[in-house]
Amino acid sequence: MPAAFLTTPRPPRRPCAPLLAPALALLMSMLVPGSGAAADAAPAGDAPAASPVAIAIHGGAGTISREAMTPEREARIRAALTEAARAGHAVLREGGTALDAVTAAITLLEDAPEFNAGRGAVLTSEGRVEMDASLMTGHDLEAGAVAGVRGIRHPILAARAVLEDSPHVMLVGRGAEDWARRAGLEFKDDDWFITPFRSEQLERLRSAEAGAARQDEAPWYSTVGAVALDAHGNLAAGTSTGGMSNKRFGRVGDSPIIGAGTYADNASCAVSATGHGEFFIRHVVAYRICAGMTLAGQGLAESADAVVNGLLTEVGGDGGVIALDARGRIAMPFNTPGMYRARIGVDGRLDVAIYGDE
Amino acid sequence: MPAAFLTTPRPPRRPCAPLLAPALALLMSMLVPGSGAAADAAPAGDAPAASPVAIAIHGGAGTISREAMTPEREARIRAALTEAARAGHAVLREGGTALDAVTAAITLLEDAPEFNAGRGAVLTSEGRVEMDASLMTGHDLEAGAVAGVRGIRHPILAARAVLEDSPHVMLVGRGAEDWARRAGLEFKDDDWFITPFRSEQLERLRSAEAGAARQDEAPWYSTVGAVALDAHGNLAAGTSTGGMSNKRFGRVGDSPIIGAGTYADNASCAVSATGHGEFFIRHVVAYRICAGMTLAGQGLAESADAVVNGLLTEVGGDGGVIALDARGRIAMPFNTPGMYRARIGVDGRLDVAIYGDE
Repeated sequence: MPAAFLTTPRPPRRPCAPLLAPALALLMSMLVPGSGAAADAAPAGDAPAASPVAIAIHGGAGTISREAMTPEREARIRAALTEAARAGHAVLREGGTALDAVTAAITLLEDAPEFNAGRGAVLTSEGRVEMDASLMTGHDLEAGAVAGVRGIRHPILAARAVLEDSPHVMLVGRGAEDWARRAGLEFKDDDWFITPFRSEQLERLRSAEAGAARQDEAPWYSTVGAVALDAHGNLAAGTSTGGMSNKRFGRVGDSPIIGAGTYADNASCAVSATGHGEFFIRHVVAYRICAGMTLAGQGLAESADAVVNGLLTEVGGDGGVIALDARGRIAMPFNTPGMYRARIGVDGRLDVAIYGDE
Repeated sequence: MPAAFLTTPRPPRRPCAPLLAPALALLMSMLVPGSGAAADAAPAGDAPAASPVAIAIHGGAGTISREAMTPEREARIRAALTEAARAGHAVLREGGTALDAVTAAITLLEDAPEFNAGRGAVLTSEGRVEMDASLMTGHDLEAGAVAGVRGIRHPILAARAVLEDSPHVMLVGRGAEDWARRAGLEFKDDDWFITPFRSEQLERLRSAEAGAARQDEAPWYSTVGAVALDAHGNLAAGTSTGGMSNKRFGRVGDSPIIGAGTYADNASCAVSATGHGEFFIRHVVAYRICAGMTLAGQGLAESADAVVNGLLTEVGGDGGVIALDARGRIAMPFNTPGMYRARIGVDGRLDVAIYGDE
């Protein structure tokens, strides 16, 4: 188990004697299975939680180099990642649920034009924005997903409306949009979503396809996602995306697929993936990482690494994941040169990173 | 491992001494990993294959009793299951691929008005037919799926067009219909799909919902599906459905979700599921059965039984699966009173069954 992927669980903000800390962490982890009901009832705004809380987020993975990045853009990306991680962590620190923390982080990432989700999403081959999102809670394995939706400012809130209010798990297209409208969610015009950067990107891709030799852009899969552990010992995971640039109208990647792009189970871990979606679907990546823990007895980092740097690398499946277990350990492996990512572990420390060597 | 779920692998149509049979079966299973290329190249219509071939199909699972069944309807169902199993098996016997066998069986089940797929599919709450289908091949983990499609006579052929010709795995709605049209697939009017039985069923459900006390019909999840092992040692799985009766427009169940309703991997097994889709998505049922073999070292029947009669029964997830491993062993567990099913194992014997006590 590579130590680099682990954050040793320590109860934050408590002056414990060093020897008491591991015992307390173990006790907390033993309380996890029975704490589902407590989580539902827990009011936000309580006194700071004594149990470990943690959050990790991503903003996509792919080919990225310092040479191709301007200082201004890098600063905007780091600021957006910092803001989203802190917003989610604040929810957790105040006793809120992992579901609320994941939602808080992802709605900010959806609004940030730097990432491929919500505002700033990539365009389909027809020049439209078509978005997917999914959410899952680990204490009850409830899930909600929407795919191929247009105009919804926060697709992750549409996924949440499906999770909380619908007997179904997945709604697509206009049926999903109707559901979001019924839930009172905010809608925006196409103009609000489409940034000049994305319009230029599509033009470049179309020219490349029209050329004799097809030249792909450096692959970049800029899904956003979050995983969180709350003070009640519950996990949640969520993912939101505009999909692949220049994708065929109607194409659905791994992001809204429970098991592929998103999975959460208190018995193992919470995972949000970002990468070449077709490979992530065929290898059921998010669930596979959890199953490595429950079925094969692997640790979180071992299982996540085996899938991302073993299985996926062998078949050419570019991308990465963020994963978090019920003790607050975080793994963020990726097999691409970079992944936008941030985490606040059980020690309360914020880490923000972009490149592979950070 | 309950013996009832197993068909001991025996090479068919060969006068072998009894002691040679297990050794030969083992040898065949060792040849599986390297046989992917051979399968692609194998022309149909070759001499009968020496390797074991097998197929299993289902036409849905749910509450069914002999009292509620007419002799005429039962005869039609058994005849349709027999025809589909034999059609798939004929492909395998002639050296065809597992993918061709699965497709041959499912297209027949889609045309049969007795089953909830293609013609005879259930109606959405808006009185329309919206269909889903998926396919996967076990030697290369290629997959194709369509969801929320209308008018395509054979949704399983649309899934196949995505598998074979598209860089994507999943297409939904009009994007999927466009792809099917481009592939030259046959389209039919709504009238062709909607049977009098389904119209009456929707009326009953609507009346029940309008009534003071909501009375659900006896739950019945009549997806169709097939799994096959070809003479080249390759597995394939496919599933096709009209979804839940009176479902919300845009709802997608487990059938088109790779990992939930369909999975195939030569290293473990091929699975097609039928049941209350939301549970099958949240528990990643088809992949979970395969992962039980690869990650936990379980046998096919043990893993399938643990998921269907353990995991799903505990959470109230009604349904069943058909599963087939690379040695031709078949498991068909279900936790409902009945499941329409048929199989032709490696011994070449046809079994057709409807009720739980058969």
